[in-house]
Amino acid sequence: MSTEELPPSIRWVGDANGHLELLDQTLLPQQRKILRVTTVDGVIDAIVRLAVRGAPAIGVAASYGLLLGVREKSLAGDALVAEVREVAARLFGARPTAVNLGWAMERCVAAVVAEPTTQRVFHAACSIHANEEAMARSIGECGKELIKPGATVLTHCNTGRLAAAGDGTALAVMFAAWRDGVKFQVLADETRPLLQGARLTALELHVAGIPVQVVADGAAAGIIASGDVDLVIVGADRITRNGDFANKVGTYPLALACAAHGVPFYVAAPLSTFDLRLPNGQSIPIEERDADEVTSFCGVSVAPEGVGARNPAFDVTPAHLVTGMVTDVGILRPPYPASIKKALVDSR
Amino acid sequence: MSTEELPPSIRWVGDANGHLELLDQTLLPQQRKILRVTTVDGVIDAIVRLAVRGAPAIGVAASYGLLLGVREKSLAGDALVAEVREVAARLFGARPTAVNLGWAMERCVAAVVAEPTTQRVFHAACSIHANEEAMARSIGECGKELIKPGATVLTHCNTGRLAAAGDGTALAVMFAAWRDGVKFQVLADETRPLLQGARLTALELHVAGIPVQVVADGAAAGIIASGDVDLVIVGADRITRNGDFANKVGTYPLALACAAHGVPFYVAAPLSTFDLRLPNGQSIPIEERDADEVTSFCGVSVAPEGVGARNPAFDVTPAHLVTGMVTDVGILRPPYPASIKKALVDSR
Repeated sequence: MSTEELPPSIRWVGDANGHLELLDQTLLPQQRKILRVTTVDGVIDAIVRLAVRGAPAIGVAASYGLLLGVREKSLAGDALVAEVREVAARLFGARPTAVNLGWAMERCVAAVVAEPTTQRVFHAACSIHANEEAMARSIGECGKELIKPGATVLTHCNTGRLAAAGDGTALAVMFAAWRDGVKFQVLADETRPLLQGARLTALELHVAGIPVQVVADGAAAGIIASGDVDLVIVGADRITRNGDFANKVGTYPLALACAAHGVPFYVAAPLSTFDLRLPNGQSIPIEERDADEVTSFCGVSVAPEGVGARNPAFDVTPAHLVTGMVTDVGILRPPYPASIKKALVDSR
Repeated sequence: MSTEELPPSIRWVGDANGHLELLDQTLLPQQRKILRVTTVDGVIDAIVRLAVRGAPAIGVAASYGLLLGVREKSLAGDALVAEVREVAARLFGARPTAVNLGWAMERCVAAVVAEPTTQRVFHAACSIHANEEAMARSIGECGKELIKPGATVLTHCNTGRLAAAGDGTALAVMFAAWRDGVKFQVLADETRPLLQGARLTALELHVAGIPVQVVADGAAAGIIASGDVDLVIVGADRITRNGDFANKVGTYPLALACAAHGVPFYVAAPLSTFDLRLPNGQSIPIEERDADEVTSFCGVSVAPEGVGARNPAFDVTPAHLVTGMVTDVGILRPPYPASIKKALVDSR
């Protein structure tokens, strides 16, 4: 298989009157179905049911969703600004944890405040899309030195082309190293309950020719303890001012295992993932999803009838467990409040 | 549902010419199918494919398997002893990590050396079975004080009536507390890849009327960090001289999370689970099982074609993370080499 075989996760077709195409990630790896989305409700539905997922990808999809939500009414001026704000708030409510969605909505609102036309909303969305692609490239370039020849890299969830515009975040680092000719292998946490690691990360790496094996999430700590993992790189849905960050549930125990065994633990994310309004991880809202994501699989019930589940979609990893943060402007090192603040000030 | 609705995991029917009945645990919770087993190969097959599982249950099933393997030949004396040794070695090879299997085989061999008759093999098996039931009761009584009214207890894999003769190990503690009228609730790690937590632990607790919710293995650390767990109790497949122990993969990250947040972490096991021949956890053989347990789910492939998996069935938790060990002779406390040695010497 070649890289070309995976369609882009997000594609806008045509001009401001065009439509959005999303690769339905709930059906991978078995089926490659492209969703044609023409309404904001269609975008919200795709975000909620994870047909499009990954913090950067959600931000891009929502930006186009904003255009889809306002273009029909042919508004301009203050009326358009009010409508944009309202639709942006609806999109923002689709998933509470990832900050990129809010970041993208704020950028779109700011753009339309400056120039209240539908065309400007379209350009804002295109710009966010292009910007995410550029950030992913930069993350890859900044982080690729971390992967040494022969290394085994462990990752969690999916942080590649399916999770983002462009190469993604943690996987962007791997793609960049691989393009440079570095040979390494990857262990992909399967990432329960929705198996984004087994279904999506393994697919992306396999298609790219990078050797990958899947592991049950609970097995990662023992494999790290055995000395078989050289570094862990994960993505992030929101990074707070002090460096605590939220990512797909199951990330935190990886960080604990890395700390216990002296294995470097990196998070990779664009600056748009940093949320300086939040002081620490305890202030991040954690989405709790439906119990049946855990209690059933492919329509088969795996728990006894009448038994429910707790299903937090994310967990919080404290900053003191993080070796470094690979961003689009370089690798941030401890102490984090200082390095994060400097990176964000410098990038303005 | 009442407690009576779950058949025993292991039952011997009749005298020494009788047969073994096993509740096929691979089909729970959907189906309750009783396997009628009349040959040693049938027992080995049931152990290998986890139709019977759990360290104590494997030891009991293998003891009856030994009888099934030798009774047809009508041997006695040295010829019987030689045959018993050979069949015991085959049974011992079925699963390498749990020590109870080896312990049971050694007891059977010792019995038949003392009195080389088929009838003595049968009595040894019955005695091991009864002994496991008594040990489970004692574990429950010794540990029940750990569960306070209103507590939330988190556990991993399945350690109850399905995993053992009698009430089991970690679940025996819960059953004993519940019988005493203590009200508490349980979070059951689903326990990938084979979902013994979602399928079996949730079933046993639900049938007993104890409130239980399932959680993805990777979610446990975040829930522990949130303060919602009062104690963790797990079983063990082998405990070494220094107190390191092997248990179902995914146990070790729970212990790390408990240590990080000051949550008590207990292991519950009979003295037959202690293996003083092994100095520490690194010397425990860890069974690696088929990749397709991870790459497919309920018969559906979840990873892309051509992608494999690493699938260690157990991990090792170091003694320094263990708050206490609930055994059939009391709760052992650190320092472990000393408390373990004393318990085993006193019990001789």
